[in-house]
Amino acid sequence: MEVALVLHMNGGVGDASYANNSLVQRKVICLTKPIREEAITNLYYCNTLPKSLAIADLGCSSGPNTLFVVSEFIKIVEKLCRELKHKSPEYKVYLNDLPGNDFNNIFKSLDTFKEKLCDEIGSAIGPSYFSGVPGSFYSRLFPNRSLDFVHSSYSLQWLSKVPEGVENNRSNIYIGSTSPTNVVRAYYQQFQRDFSVFLKCRAEELVEGGRMVLTILGRKSDDPSSKEGCYIWELMATALNDMVLQGTIKKEQLDTFNIPQYTPSPSEVKLEVLKEGSFFIDRLEVSEVHWNAFDEWNALEFEYERSESLSDGGYNVAQCMRAVAEPMLVSHFGEDIIEEVFSRYQQILADRMSKEKTKFFNVTILLTRKA
Amino acid sequence: MEVALVLHMNGGVGDASYANNSLVQRKVICLTKPIREEAITNLYYCNTLPKSLAIADLGCSSGPNTLFVVSEFIKIVEKLCRELKHKSPEYKVYLNDLPGNDFNNIFKSLDTFKEKLCDEIGSAIGPSYFSGVPGSFYSRLFPNRSLDFVHSSYSLQWLSKVPEGVENNRSNIYIGSTSPTNVVRAYYQQFQRDFSVFLKCRAEELVEGGRMVLTILGRKSDDPSSKEGCYIWELMATALNDMVLQGTIKKEQLDTFNIPQYTPSPSEVKLEVLKEGSFFIDRLEVSEVHWNAFDEWNALEFEYERSESLSDGGYNVAQCMRAVAEPMLVSHFGEDIIEEVFSRYQQILADRMSKEKTKFFNVTILLTRKA
Repeated sequence: MEVALVLHMNGGVGDASYANNSLVQRKVICLTKPIREEAITNLYYCNTLPKSLAIADLGCSSGPNTLFVVSEFIKIVEKLCRELKHKSPEYKVYLNDLPGNDFNNIFKSLDTFKEKLCDEIGSAIGPSYFSGVPGSFYSRLFPNRSLDFVHSSYSLQWLSKVPEGVENNRSNIYIGSTSPTNVVRAYYQQFQRDFSVFLKCRAEELVEGGRMVLTILGRKSDDPSSKEGCYIWELMATALNDMVLQGTIKKEQLDTFNIPQYTPSPSEVKLEVLKEGSFFIDRLEVSEVHWNAFDEWNALEFEYERSESLSDGGYNVAQCMRAVAEPMLVSHFGEDIIEEVFSRYQQILADRMSKEKTKFFNVTILLTRKA
Repeated sequence: MEVALVLHMNGGVGDASYANNSLVQRKVICLTKPIREEAITNLYYCNTLPKSLAIADLGCSSGPNTLFVVSEFIKIVEKLCRELKHKSPEYKVYLNDLPGNDFNNIFKSLDTFKEKLCDEIGSAIGPSYFSGVPGSFYSRLFPNRSLDFVHSSYSLQWLSKVPEGVENNRSNIYIGSTSPTNVVRAYYQQFQRDFSVFLKCRAEELVEGGRMVLTILGRKSDDPSSKEGCYIWELMATALNDMVLQGTIKKEQLDTFNIPQYTPSPSEVKLEVLKEGSFFIDRLEVSEVHWNAFDEWNALEFEYERSESLSDGGYNVAQCMRAVAEPMLVSHFGEDIIEEVFSRYQQILADRMSKEKTKFFNVTILLTRKA
């Protein structure tokens, strides 16, 4: 897999707004709110009357969830300012994703977003300056010590590339129960390299005392090949293998297809942070969301979406996975197989979801930049 | 005309990349190079070993000319660094245009741009951080004292809106030889309001000693209704009036159509700068470019484009004007008339250009932010 392919995966193309809009992601953002509240409040109190706060959302994508965390950040700070009778700071908001992301769409929504935010807060907010920052977060994106708060949700599980040395992963497309140990090791090592580069870059970009909240699609178990992180891809592999048997896909094609993702455990995340050394770990938590987020959704709060998506027979999960996987599949297998892959995948998902409680596991870590 | 319409005019939609790509604009950028060189060199010398330089291009559009000035800026600074044996600074590059601009296109070209720039310079450059900043430059776009260098070319002739009180401009679409004096006054006052807001905003955003180079489509003459700034629109008005006579366009429709532009004289530009008071005027110049830029183009340097565009019978000028005017015309008159308007316009342009030396006049001003 070339890097060019990876460019599609933070929500850059096609139906990516579906993934960004997904209820799973929204649920995760809601679940992790207390951690961000703690981070933002502490950040504000540690700065003596901050005149300016710079916040970056890394892997922001382009859709209804894109500005959610920014809005929350500004609301919390404005509330603190009113309580403490402080003047509102100015906000520098940096929205980052890969260059293929639809920044045009975000930019066109900004005026409405700001108006709505002021309405919700009920007063004018401090001056806010928005900009789009294209590039990979596995490289430097911002000047030295220019950020106060970094947020990233559901992006860091994407590796910078498919690890090398996974040729013998054959009928699997990610770490699977039948993956050889060298494959598991290669995936983990790629995660270690990528995540340590990420931490090193952000350590240079954050100010002393700056906070970072990262939510990564991961797992609870220490076993990298546990079902928790792998099952969703194993079921897609099942669909692809069925098509190999049927003759629609060549075996060699499937054997050489692998997904550049790694779903780390809390201790794997913690280890890289400790090795890098620039951050205190304030919190490290695992949360769970059912694949079909409605299994435990607050029906009152999201009545509309609920009525739209209940008992959808795997449709939403399949669409959400399609948003991220389709560009990779098209690039490797061509366009012709896509409809059948996702039709089969949806059936398999529906079957599994009716028989087991299938969950995504999210590792959330709150870090403070050391002096 | 609503503000929504004005949104289309800094190169946001349709064929705007044609306007940005136009030879006239490229020529203007080349003509004004010595002024920018002076500005950048002085800026660098006045900063003692600047670690960081922040440059903003306002009204950057999206096309081959978009990153030209940024590239020039970095080349000049890198050359100075080598001559003086200084370490390269980091570059913060802000590309601004209205939210309708095609930022996606710019962002996708950045990696290639940086590679090419390094090749041309022959060595690695200082770290460079690019971001897109959507919004009107008639409002604050950047935090206080955050910019070292501001550039804007061929954008500030666009007003924030059509001035009020120009109802009696009838068959004219901009200031024309038959425009009543109140119309001329209304246009000038709108320019004064807009340009003073622009200066006030930039004065807050630039650091002390920061430089600003602005090139505005303008005129040499002190008479606002002189042919220099108005002729290109008068000829479009001729095409539209012909279509009124023919019955394709209703007279009332033409009577209520006006272009939100003002082509100021050097002294009008100077007056606003002096009134605002935050800037020293280092230079104020007028340059001229023929409508058909090839009249005096360096054939050796741009052989390809030359062969493409020589003796084009007004095609290039018509296309360039179409890029900026089409969205406004469509919004006011509907789509159906467009082909005929520009077909007629091109004929009129070809006729005039064969009989007179028709020119654009550019007012360029170099300013330094006072302490």
